[in-house]
Amino acid sequence: MVTMTRPDAGVVAELVSHLSGQFGERAVTSRAVREHHSHGEGLADPALPDVVVFPHSNDEVASIVRLCRLARVPVIAFGVGTSLEGHVAALYGGVCLDLSQMNRVLDINAGDLDCRVEAGVTREQLNAELKGTGLFFPIDPGANATIGGMTATRASGTNAVRYGTMRENVMGLTVVTAEGRVVRTGGRARKSSAGYDLTRLFVGAEGTLGIITEIQLRLYGVPEAISAAVCQFADLASAVNAVIVAMQSGIPVARIELLDDVQMDASIRYSKLQGFDAKPTLFFEFHGSEAGVREQSAAMQAISDDFGGSTFQWATLAEERSRLWKARHDAYYAALALKPGMTSFATDACVPISRLADCILETKAEVEKSGLTAPILGHVGDGNFHLVVLFDPADPSARERAEALAKSVSLRAIRMGGTCTGEHGIGWHKLDVLEKEHGESVDLMRSIKRALDPYNIMNPGKTVPL
Amino acid sequence: MVTMTRPDAGVVAELVSHLSGQFGERAVTSRAVREHHSHGEGLADPALPDVVVFPHSNDEVASIVRLCRLARVPVIAFGVGTSLEGHVAALYGGVCLDLSQMNRVLDINAGDLDCRVEAGVTREQLNAELKGTGLFFPIDPGANATIGGMTATRASGTNAVRYGTMRENVMGLTVVTAEGRVVRTGGRARKSSAGYDLTRLFVGAEGTLGIITEIQLRLYGVPEAISAAVCQFADLASAVNAVIVAMQSGIPVARIELLDDVQMDASIRYSKLQGFDAKPTLFFEFHGSEAGVREQSAAMQAISDDFGGSTFQWATLAEERSRLWKARHDAYYAALALKPGMTSFATDACVPISRLADCILETKAEVEKSGLTAPILGHVGDGNFHLVVLFDPADPSARERAEALAKSVSLRAIRMGGTCTGEHGIGWHKLDVLEKEHGESVDLMRSIKRALDPYNIMNPGKTVPL
Repeated sequence: MVTMTRPDAGVVAELVSHLSGQFGERAVTSRAVREHHSHGEGLADPALPDVVVFPHSNDEVASIVRLCRLARVPVIAFGVGTSLEGHVAALYGGVCLDLSQMNRVLDINAGDLDCRVEAGVTREQLNAELKGTGLFFPIDPGANATIGGMTATRASGTNAVRYGTMRENVMGLTVVTAEGRVVRTGGRARKSSAGYDLTRLFVGAEGTLGIITEIQLRLYGVPEAISAAVCQFADLASAVNAVIVAMQSGIPVARIELLDDVQMDASIRYSKLQGFDAKPTLFFEFHGSEAGVREQSAAMQAISDDFGGSTFQWATLAEERSRLWKARHDAYYAALALKPGMTSFATDACVPISRLADCILETKAEVEKSGLTAPILGHVGDGNFHLVVLFDPADPSARERAEALAKSVSLRAIRMGGTCTGEHGIGWHKLDVLEKEHGESVDLMRSIKRALDPYNIMNPGKTVPL
Repeated sequence: MVTMTRPDAGVVAELVSHLSGQFGERAVTSRAVREHHSHGEGLADPALPDVVVFPHSNDEVASIVRLCRLARVPVIAFGVGTSLEGHVAALYGGVCLDLSQMNRVLDINAGDLDCRVEAGVTREQLNAELKGTGLFFPIDPGANATIGGMTATRASGTNAVRYGTMRENVMGLTVVTAEGRVVRTGGRARKSSAGYDLTRLFVGAEGTLGIITEIQLRLYGVPEAISAAVCQFADLASAVNAVIVAMQSGIPVARIELLDDVQMDASIRYSKLQGFDAKPTLFFEFHGSEAGVREQSAAMQAISDDFGGSTFQWATLAEERSRLWKARHDAYYAALALKPGMTSFATDACVPISRLADCILETKAEVEKSGLTAPILGHVGDGNFHLVVLFDPADPSARERAEALAKSVSLRAIRMGGTCTGEHGIGWHKLDVLEKEHGESVDLMRSIKRALDPYNIMNPGKTVPL
């Protein structure tokens, strides 16, 4: 395997000159643009690419990759920069391939409940374009990420309990390989046993095996009835245990979101939520027929009652629901606003549902011991939770403690039979725990990386430790 | 790549002697046993392995694979021989690894709705062992296949409309690699973004990348209410169009099975179904709460009415339902009984639901023109249908015509945006159409095969044309 070192400056300069010749103003070397493309929303350890190119087609992407391959220079895909684990950092410089201008919805097949989009389409854009079809795309990681980025990180979010993750909802891909060939994977049939599942291999590979340029997605009919409710609990254990019983009972809740007392306090202030206390809280959403939604919510209320939950406060109107979910999506900013001047990062972990209470309660105790402020929230219906860790950027020991806390959460989840990341990905921040989770099978990942990207030019330094 | 030729007879003899030394009576070279392990249920082009070994543990499997690697001799996994596309034929001889004695259910985690089984556990055995837990494993390809075989072929069957296929229900694997290492992939969390999706790579790889020895599976709560119904239609188009509308409406039917007039005629005679005509027929099953099942079945009856369907004939008691589904599962034998002395094979294809009527009707017309008897049936809720092609084994031109018909169905499905196999797999019978479906991405499959099995000893000659 060619491990990457920063390529020769002269080679890079010639490559940039080639790209400028071909792409004109769509090949940008200004520091501001390179800086903007050097990090996502997580901890900013900016690593600037040498040039940012804005392709408009598969063929343009292929031509850029072929030049990068010829020059043995890294190429890193970029959507809208909402990654949380350093996926887009140009650790060895190279070419940032900004796909945001490949943002067309190519086909909507209402009859087959599927569509094909370019990688730069964002999930909000897609849902706006689906308006009037009676269909929607449910995967909702909070940020208005691109479908390409969501595919590359195997994202999920609040709706995954009912609708699955990107893994379940990507039917096929157009990918530019490390050789610069445009290939199609998967297809439009609901299922297939024809050959290796290349689609699932690229989903979650974080751009290290190829550049995803188009995605075939499953769509769903907008449910006849949707209603959302909020329930508060005296303590964290009760809230989490209610979730565990609900999932074990197979209630098809569309969303179950947990906010702990610290997060709820932050969200009440930031999002001006009225009528709630700073107590552990669950946000629910139910999808189905009118009768089905009534049945699900009655079952869920009964379980919550058993754990001392409050009477559900309903948000049935679309605007009320939007306000509630906006508060949930703004949780990260609400947390930041708790401590002005602090910086923060989010980490996520996911465990089998039976271990969720143990994992969250041990984590909460560790947070309290650490002296850091770190609200807990998450998509708990999947066993997935997040920690937003706040720390003083001027205090190196605080950052060290914050990172140690995050690593400890990863290791705890792995010990409990879970994973160091349910949906944010590995990027380069979690490379050190991947082997703890996957053991010797990481060698198979390395073999695949070597086979498909022998010169290690596709987003080097990410996803799999080489 | 090392393309395979039949290995040197002397090497094979020495290998067999090593295996006999280690496994005693569990290494079998009798012609009868080798013959039994040379083919599945599809077209029998028996290709005998040189020896059949019955391992009892991961370590035994690993030790066999290491010997095969040393000798550069093929190794082929075998479950209970229900494969339909020649997956288990020992095309170049070698070692058949019969996993049927690795048949323990290792863990049942009722709280997390998952379990771990050895590869030789059959689906009926698993469901028998789950009795009393309130849980079941829904994937039902008809045959009482092993979970290992179902995983390796990415199987699905009648319940896939609601519960997905093996792709969606395998959470993790234990695999013996071509190097003879025992590795674990995936895990017990409901979702993960940690590294490449090796689990999905081995699911459907048909033993060409490694030997699957243990499988972590999702389980489901037994529904509160189940009811099944039968509805008959005047013509095939009406039956299929009712399915299309039902799927587009998002009715969460658990099973929708089609039997065309020829198949229904066969099944009425073979399974002694009373009160039905030899007309295109849909079998339905609804799962949910009492109210949910009522709601689903009323919606389905209304759609069927629009297409002139008969009043639903209900099978609500468990025994009635079993009789109905047994008739469905016996469809293949019923078809065979139509023409005593004939032989047959099944082929399957899957298309986007909007093309299902076109694909089935064109196929039906082609069958009629061919002069062959070939009932159509299938898991039409997924867009998946099967053709059972009967022909006179003594007439070489009949076999040629039968195979030409099957190939034509594959190509038609691909032309319509579908796949040459929804659930049976490629084996070696469909190698010639894989490239028609997947184009240049087959090169990526080849690269992965080379990377993980450089000596081409894992089930050589299957799945991917080298």
